[in-house]
Amino acid sequence: MISLQSYVRGRWVAGSGDTKTLHDPATEAVLGDVRQGGVDFAEVLAHATTTGGPALRAMTFPQRAEALKALSAKLHEHRDELLDIATQNGGNTRGDGKFDLDGCTGTLAYYAQLGSQLPAAAHLVDGDGLQLTRSPRFFGQHVLVPRPGAAVHINAFNFPAWGMGEKMACALLAGVPVIEKAGTPSALLAYRIAQLVVDSKLLPEGAFQFLAGSVSGLLDLLGPMDTVAFTGSSATGALIRGNKHLVTRSVRVNIEADSINPAVLGPDADGDTFEQFVANIATDMTQKAGQKCTAVRRILVPADRIAEVEEALVERLRAIKVGNPANGDVRMGPVASSEALATVRAGMQRLQAVSDTVLGGPQAIADRGYFVAPTLLRAKDPNAAVLHELEVFGPCATMVAYDGTAASAAALCNRGGGGLVASAYSDDRAFVEALVLGIAPWHGRVWLGSEKTMSQATPPGAVLPATIHGGPGRAGGGEELGGLRGLHPYLQRTAIQGDRAVVGRAFGRDGA
Amino acid sequence: MISLQSYVRGRWVAGSGDTKTLHDPATEAVLGDVRQGGVDFAEVLAHATTTGGPALRAMTFPQRAEALKALSAKLHEHRDELLDIATQNGGNTRGDGKFDLDGCTGTLAYYAQLGSQLPAAAHLVDGDGLQLTRSPRFFGQHVLVPRPGAAVHINAFNFPAWGMGEKMACALLAGVPVIEKAGTPSALLAYRIAQLVVDSKLLPEGAFQFLAGSVSGLLDLLGPMDTVAFTGSSATGALIRGNKHLVTRSVRVNIEADSINPAVLGPDADGDTFEQFVANIATDMTQKAGQKCTAVRRILVPADRIAEVEEALVERLRAIKVGNPANGDVRMGPVASSEALATVRAGMQRLQAVSDTVLGGPQAIADRGYFVAPTLLRAKDPNAAVLHELEVFGPCATMVAYDGTAASAAALCNRGGGGLVASAYSDDRAFVEALVLGIAPWHGRVWLGSEKTMSQATPPGAVLPATIHGGPGRAGGGEELGGLRGLHPYLQRTAIQGDRAVVGRAFGRDGA
Repeated sequence: MISLQSYVRGRWVAGSGDTKTLHDPATEAVLGDVRQGGVDFAEVLAHATTTGGPALRAMTFPQRAEALKALSAKLHEHRDELLDIATQNGGNTRGDGKFDLDGCTGTLAYYAQLGSQLPAAAHLVDGDGLQLTRSPRFFGQHVLVPRPGAAVHINAFNFPAWGMGEKMACALLAGVPVIEKAGTPSALLAYRIAQLVVDSKLLPEGAFQFLAGSVSGLLDLLGPMDTVAFTGSSATGALIRGNKHLVTRSVRVNIEADSINPAVLGPDADGDTFEQFVANIATDMTQKAGQKCTAVRRILVPADRIAEVEEALVERLRAIKVGNPANGDVRMGPVASSEALATVRAGMQRLQAVSDTVLGGPQAIADRGYFVAPTLLRAKDPNAAVLHELEVFGPCATMVAYDGTAASAAALCNRGGGGLVASAYSDDRAFVEALVLGIAPWHGRVWLGSEKTMSQATPPGAVLPATIHGGPGRAGGGEELGGLRGLHPYLQRTAIQGDRAVVGRAFGRDGA
Repeated sequence: MISLQSYVRGRWVAGSGDTKTLHDPATEAVLGDVRQGGVDFAEVLAHATTTGGPALRAMTFPQRAEALKALSAKLHEHRDELLDIATQNGGNTRGDGKFDLDGCTGTLAYYAQLGSQLPAAAHLVDGDGLQLTRSPRFFGQHVLVPRPGAAVHINAFNFPAWGMGEKMACALLAGVPVIEKAGTPSALLAYRIAQLVVDSKLLPEGAFQFLAGSVSGLLDLLGPMDTVAFTGSSATGALIRGNKHLVTRSVRVNIEADSINPAVLGPDADGDTFEQFVANIATDMTQKAGQKCTAVRRILVPADRIAEVEEALVERLRAIKVGNPANGDVRMGPVASSEALATVRAGMQRLQAVSDTVLGGPQAIADRGYFVAPTLLRAKDPNAAVLHELEVFGPCATMVAYDGTAASAAALCNRGGGGLVASAYSDDRAFVEALVLGIAPWHGRVWLGSEKTMSQATPPGAVLPATIHGGPGRAGGGEELGGLRGLHPYLQRTAIQGDRAVVGRAFGRDGA
């Protein structure tokens, strides 16, 4: 039994007030608790901006990158211990845990590498210098400078390691101190990572603070130089974005939310292309018990190939052993909490109202633990609204028939109202190009599987630091990662205008 | 007497309901009216997205650029007529009118030129292609694609030509149809421009619609692919940003709002540097009767130079003839409306409570017309909050003493809580560099005057299309213009991942 503490103002403090219990989702055993209160948010914020921020900004980009590199190595050293916690408090199989943890250390290492190539300066040069009038003297240069505020990161429960790591990497490299809030159900892993970060002393004091409990009172204290990055539900995202204080003070808000991600099977897809389609969908549905914001939810299949796809997916999914991930042969664990289980079951029932159930369903499959079966549905009516609007955050996806044209597939994809990732499997270039142009405005990322990507590509559910993560509309309208783009929420773009000899030398590439 | 109409769904329609009267602000003569209702917003939106958008996106970037070029030329042909309207309904001197109108045609021409160099493609390539894993096959390319929605532009009354033109230029070049709402007090000029745009037939039907009256009901109909760009007060900006519907649907909102722009005199500034400081401040205070979002409001002066600055500014300001701009020798006209006059007077009184009045003040200076005197104040206490938080949108600025150090100047500048532009006048590079690094995060643009910029630079109040316009915090947190960056609110950035041969050729630079 452990009661999680918060790390604020240079020390660990116990929580107080309302309590949430942490469980092993496979056994329902009680592991500890999180108390929601006990933290003085004004002091936390002041510590970040007056101690952490100045210390970070006194470092160059490459120096901050060096700290990220060492942090990545430090966490990797503790990999086995952390994977055990991921299993215990997250219901993760070993594979799930590695996906999360290696995603965290990999992203930290990626930004370390990127940052090592940045100039040892206080700002980044943004684009070319510009002659602004007919006179060559009057010159403009856009720069990106660290914002002297704090980065408040409200992390989701499904990726306690990666989610925190990817947000931290971008803010810290940008020179902005972080205040990390852990997603509650799986907070043990985030907590242990926070301990390792603190104990490492790799970051200057104030650059990293960790909140185990509630964060909501903090939002009302933020100012124009602060950034809130949230990953979670669209509903909570809208509450944060609409928070009156944040609205009034133009506080930057970056949101990653629901996404009813589509995967499209091209009419031509066969051989390795079809193989990848089946393998990736089975992975997406069951990895992390389907609790991935990028997991496929809608499987778009030409009407005349539904039976073929159904057979192939059922065969794959039936082979996946569900159970306590502490057992090595288990391939899918439980969902994260009893609340998550209830929500997933209710969502499956709503989808069942417009679908036939091919495999699984919401019924209980174990006496104990938050288990639910891999569930494959087949839509009766491809246009039923709930298919395109309800994210069931568990091991569940629905096959939706389309007429085999790119235009129809695009229209169905876009019914999702904005998503994180759409994938398509085809070797017909005309089909692929038409589909991509149709769906690109509605999706932050489009993943294309073809014969040549067999065994070469990460699956569409994997978020890579070099390409952006985020999507419009329902997905929250945010943007994270994408190389240096990931630093932008923490930087202010400023146009500097003046004498070329002054501006170019001090702030542009003329000085390099 | 004219009752302004709206141009929607391919025809001009009369307004209905509540009426606002349009005046000549110099004589208070009634010129016409605007009725707030009479438009079916759902139909306007549908027309934009189903007729205008597809037609625009069927054109290439260079083709859309060509239309902007012709539009710029068309408006320029009618320059004299438009300048007369700017005087009549805007209280503009000839110089004020040119600043607005030539800003409009110049920005259209700038984006025409920029667009002529873009590829004849449906998307823009964003950054370099990326090898995503160890395999050279798996490749990523970010692209920018036009969003299949509408651009709702809520324009301010102070720049009926430029404000509409700069927003239109960016959206149309991006391939997104516009719905332009005119700022009411000066709507006659926007209306006449809209007539010229429509009559020119240079844009495909549905690409341009014009609303003379209220726009608020339209916001509740927007979706994830639409963009709202607003220029006006922080208070209204916050209402728009916090609109529940916009929040819930992740509608993009770009806001340009209040800004208590500072100008800093360096302790060293003399000769041409000092001359520019005085000339630019006098211009900013009186051009457009101070109704510029970029006009200087706080004049930061080393304490031992206050008397010198006061003398120079008073001499300049006294020479400026205030009156009906229909008279050629008048250098400053009235503010835009009786409401604007009342707000400016009340604001001056609030500033007077913490300042000495050097010149002018809120008292009436004419029996008729919305006139107010150029008003120079001197703060008693440099730290009085109202100095840094209240934008008096008229010919008024306050001198604020500082101790001559860059750190103190930066701290005072940043008290504005986020601004559009800060300017500094100095030939001491150490001072300038320290000041810029201190203020850059809080200002979207920093303008540097020095000996060498004399007669070479546009003044800080001028917004140039090549550099961004916008600022954090109180200024709304938006970003417009800045070359291609100005198109970003209307484009979706999407990462495309897949086989290099497919992605690179169809969407990257490999195909070029």
